[in-house]
Amino acid sequence: MKKDARITIKDIAKLTGVSVATISRVMNHKRVVKEDTRKKVLDAMERLNFNPSSILLTNHTSKTILLCVPDFSNPFNGLIIDGIQQSAYKNQYRVLILQSKENYLTLDDYEEVLKNHSFAGIILLTSVTDAELLQLLNRSCPIVMCSEYCDVKDISFVSIDDITAAHRASEYLISCGCKKIALLNSDLRHGYARHREQGYTEALKTAGLDIREEWMAHISSINYDLAFSYTLNMLNRPDPPDAFFAVSDVFASAAIHAAKKMKLRIPEDLSVVGFDNIGLSCMTDPPITTVEQPSVQIGYQSCELLIERIRNPKAVSKGLILDTQLIVRDSTLRFSK
Amino acid sequence: MKKDARITIKDIAKLTGVSVATISRVMNHKRVVKEDTRKKVLDAMERLNFNPSSILLTNHTSKTILLCVPDFSNPFNGLIIDGIQQSAYKNQYRVLILQSKENYLTLDDYEEVLKNHSFAGIILLTSVTDAELLQLLNRSCPIVMCSEYCDVKDISFVSIDDITAAHRASEYLISCGCKKIALLNSDLRHGYARHREQGYTEALKTAGLDIREEWMAHISSINYDLAFSYTLNMLNRPDPPDAFFAVSDVFASAAIHAAKKMKLRIPEDLSVVGFDNIGLSCMTDPPITTVEQPSVQIGYQSCELLIERIRNPKAVSKGLILDTQLIVRDSTLRFSK
Repeated sequence: MKKDARITIKDIAKLTGVSVATISRVMNHKRVVKEDTRKKVLDAMERLNFNPSSILLTNHTSKTILLCVPDFSNPFNGLIIDGIQQSAYKNQYRVLILQSKENYLTLDDYEEVLKNHSFAGIILLTSVTDAELLQLLNRSCPIVMCSEYCDVKDISFVSIDDITAAHRASEYLISCGCKKIALLNSDLRHGYARHREQGYTEALKTAGLDIREEWMAHISSINYDLAFSYTLNMLNRPDPPDAFFAVSDVFASAAIHAAKKMKLRIPEDLSVVGFDNIGLSCMTDPPITTVEQPSVQIGYQSCELLIERIRNPKAVSKGLILDTQLIVRDSTLRFSK
Repeated sequence: MKKDARITIKDIAKLTGVSVATISRVMNHKRVVKEDTRKKVLDAMERLNFNPSSILLTNHTSKTILLCVPDFSNPFNGLIIDGIQQSAYKNQYRVLILQSKENYLTLDDYEEVLKNHSFAGIILLTSVTDAELLQLLNRSCPIVMCSEYCDVKDISFVSIDDITAAHRASEYLISCGCKKIALLNSDLRHGYARHREQGYTEALKTAGLDIREEWMAHISSINYDLAFSYTLNMLNRPDPPDAFFAVSDVFASAAIHAAKKMKLRIPEDLSVVGFDNIGLSCMTDPPITTVEQPSVQIGYQSCELLIERIRNPKAVSKGLILDTQLIVRDSTLRFSK
């Protein structure tokens, strides 16, 4: 899709045979690059008249924010977007949204968009874990990581404390008398999935409960049907779980329906705790005990931080961790068994 | 948010005291404008060095499609977006999405975006009914209306036959023995809402059933809580309905939960038919009888039509009406009472 003759890092990589990551290290003046490699890269850059600071077309007068969202099947993302839009509207910015799905994890992907459109800054709801990519992008225009984040120098983020939230939710199930607690988790490439699994295992360990591989599902996307199948599977094995901690209300809702299909009573036979507190959590029968995320606030604060940095590029980066809350409904027992 | 000195139609309107609509008529060489008004507008355009064909910055080499979506709270929109992305990806276009909410109904709104970004074409999932606005936009870059449409010369659309679909769904309820059928509809500013109401009233009329104002709700957005309240309200009145036809599965799901709150049995005491066949329609207890829209196909075909017109600006516009299907589940009786 390249339209012009602008030289990119990838061109330098092709020409020199040096990886994009190493070139990025050279550009970031890191000391871990061998001297002859560094020289080769700098020579190629000079020969091609490549200006590192111009690789990404950004425009500080642009009033458009680029928002990368993995997809729209998770209602949680819709709430985050609402929060971002509220702040953008108030500050007279507009937001253009890119659905990233499994893409937008490499510099190439972003270069293509940023070469063709001018943005004042980027909000990433998409899970990008490549610190070098993040820093490279952040050198061209301010970035804020929203909900999913990794701790990278100079990049702001707004999120929650996933470990503590998952720990508390699991503890609550334990306090209700559940002893065989299964986890409906996302793929572990997501930071939130790793952190919630950590909170869950820590709580179970502290209580001296079994942590079993076969009671942990890692589901590739926030997909109801997949979660339904995983739950049925676990419930159909000998010695099934007596509770599910789900990292999404979509998963929790699937667990409730799968359990009902097997004629289990909720919460008498099986307790279920979800995560997010999206509308769906009140639409099931019984409604779902869940960890409420301040979704709209997470979006709003992300956009506020971004605009602060757009207006003052020298502003220091900030990491905001917002509070979560366990909302107890009828999918869990309200007292010890 | 204006950043440059580009002259817009609005500037011409201000200067001449002539409405934007009339100026647009002058630009479209329509004969309904008084001669002295026409002269005043043309003089102002010349004085300001205004080039009508350059009011909107579009770029035929752009590989980006602008998609306007009202919001992300309706899962139906997510399916449409998936279809659009599939076609765009196959054709090597990218899609940037604008959440329009209640805005993006005037030329000003679009000018702001199109002045600052270059797009190859626009897909409107947002309900725009101003034919002049549509034609003005369409002169600058191809437009396809997706799902919501109005029949405007030279503008392609992909949608369904809402009248027939609603007629069939209502007929089905009648065939199940329901005699007091209520309608959970959207705001009538949406074309689909007007058409589905037409199909519903025609079916009831043909069957000689009562059409009562108090059994018709016009709900401002696809919002579960609002639909829940409307349903409770109708069911609490004397002589309540014995069935609901809902123009969205979100509304149908709310109706089922409201009815259950009142200890009504579904479908024995109350039948419910929804619309769209989104994932939610299988998550309720009982699952919802619904009109399936080929959502992903609607999105996919919209994008295909758009790209056809981008590649060949002289291609004739097309209107595609895709088939719907009634999917019978357990929220309706399967036989006559």
